Amino acid sequence: MTHTNSQAEKADLFRELHHGPEILVLPNSWDVATARVFELAGFPALGTTSAGIANSLGYPDGGYISRDEMMEVVARIVRAVAIPVTADVEFGYGDPLATAKAVAAAGAVGMNLEDTRGEDPNTLIDIGTQTAIIRSIRDLRLPIVLNARTDIYLAGIGDPATRFARTVERLNAYREAGADCLFAPGIRDAETIAGLARDVHGPLNILASVGGLPAGELQRLGVARMSIGSGPARATLGLVRRIATELREQGSYQTMLDGQIPYAEINQMFER
Amino acid sequence: MTHTNSQAEKADLFRELHHGPEILVLPNSWDVATARVFELAGFPALGTTSAGIANSLGYPDGGYISRDEMMEVVARIVRAVAIPVTADVEFGYGDPLATAKAVAAAGAVGMNLEDTRGEDPNTLIDIGTQTAIIRSIRDLRLPIVLNARTDIYLAGIGDPATRFARTVERLNAYREAGADCLFAPGIRDAETIAGLARDVHGPLNILASVGGLPAGELQRLGVARMSIGSGPARATLGLVRRIATELREQGSYQTMLDGQIPYAEINQMFER
Repeated sequence: MTHTNSQAEKADLFRELHHGPEILVLPNSWDVATARVFELAGFPALGTTSAGIANSLGYPDGGYISRDEMMEVVARIVRAVAIPVTADVEFGYGDPLATAKAVAAAGAVGMNLEDTRGEDPNTLIDIGTQTAIIRSIRDLRLPIVLNARTDIYLAGIGDPATRFARTVERLNAYREAGADCLFAPGIRDAETIAGLARDVHGPLNILASVGGLPAGELQRLGVARMSIGSGPARATLGLVRRIATELREQGSYQTMLDGQIPYAEINQMFER
Repeated sequence: MTHTNSQAEKADLFRELHHGPEILVLPNSWDVATARVFELAGFPALGTTSAGIANSLGYPDGGYISRDEMMEVVARIVRAVAIPVTADVEFGYGDPLATAKAVAAAGAVGMNLEDTRGEDPNTLIDIGTQTAIIRSIRDLRLPIVLNARTDIYLAGIGDPATRFARTVERLNAYREAGADCLFAPGIRDAETIAGLARDVHGPLNILASVGGLPAGELQRLGVARMSIGSGPARATLGLVRRIATELREQGSYQTMLDGQIPYAEINQMFER
């Protein structure tokens, strides 16, 4: 498979954003409309959220959606924005290498790869297997910024006293295998984050979540990238539920009107 | 084409909701996640929003999306909810009869049909042509509640002094041709709405919008159905923009956390 210069350049540009003086703050979209809103807000790059896309198409998160369905949404988003897009592809839908190729074919220039499988989210894939997969993806020489994730903290796997050391071990092994960025979701406290930023030998990605630190704090702790996952998708569904409750119980729709973007203004975002 | 009993029964059930003692309040969804939120809130039926679906897939509203893309989303929503679904299919994507068949094939039991074309939203289709189209759709004997819309008020077409009489003329002609419900979006004031409810010989559909009346008021004026169009979709994009602005300018994400639905709770909405 060959790729245009512009896609390789875009991947390089996206990779460089992990090494700048400022933390890379990455919003996560789940359709073209949300992608355009984030792009117009001035973000230099964009992620997707597997949960948001899966829910939007009628699936729970965790590998139930097919690779083709996921990549169709990713490709639509890529076509609609000028900034680099990185795809949340979970554990690669049964075949991480085929998924990596599909990510590049869709025009995305980055992907996340988890070290648990959707059907068994509490069991880590053997570290040797996972590093071999990462190395194999790297050997494809795709224009892809590979963000290797460990779910030790997020899923609460194993003895809590050993989580920090096992996370460092895995992320450094993933880096050694060729990952560009190392992702440890599920961590909020400053001490653990600072320790990871110190001991992990590559750019560290932290997930924004309830009780989490703002981007400026994470930057001071040495974090290279902050993403926000399914947070915005779940916020909009919370709003839809409040609209639904008001409409169903009172027949009124003030919650819907407050802060909505006018019809004509939204349509302008998609003019061709 | 044959249809299961259950689809015909569902269409009948949906039609009856236009003749009950209470106004039918119809929320409009644009993906499976929003459809499930509305269903779980207890609504007896569900609409879609052409604008919300078009924007979500990267198009402006107004007939730019293909019939196949629109119907794929409608079919996903139908498969995911138990309540009757009516599809907003604009002017039928170049072929209203083919679109009506596609609506029924997707399992939806209702459709809107506009009397302007997407590429020329300010010119009404000749009344004789539009009634012939409605009659032809009716002759297909599909299990479809046909909601015939006139855009005289919404698009502000023709001499304002003649709008009321022309709207009554069109809606009564559409009813005569077989429409189940008559839709006049773009009207807010009580006097005009009461006049239409009096002079139109069939169930009247009014669109909720800025400055509009709540469902209880519309019911007292004789309105049979209130829908909310792209309002909720545009409300969520307003929220995404506020999330984006806070995140981009301050690196914080309180707007995202306020009122979001927890990850596990959303996934439960899609368990199979």
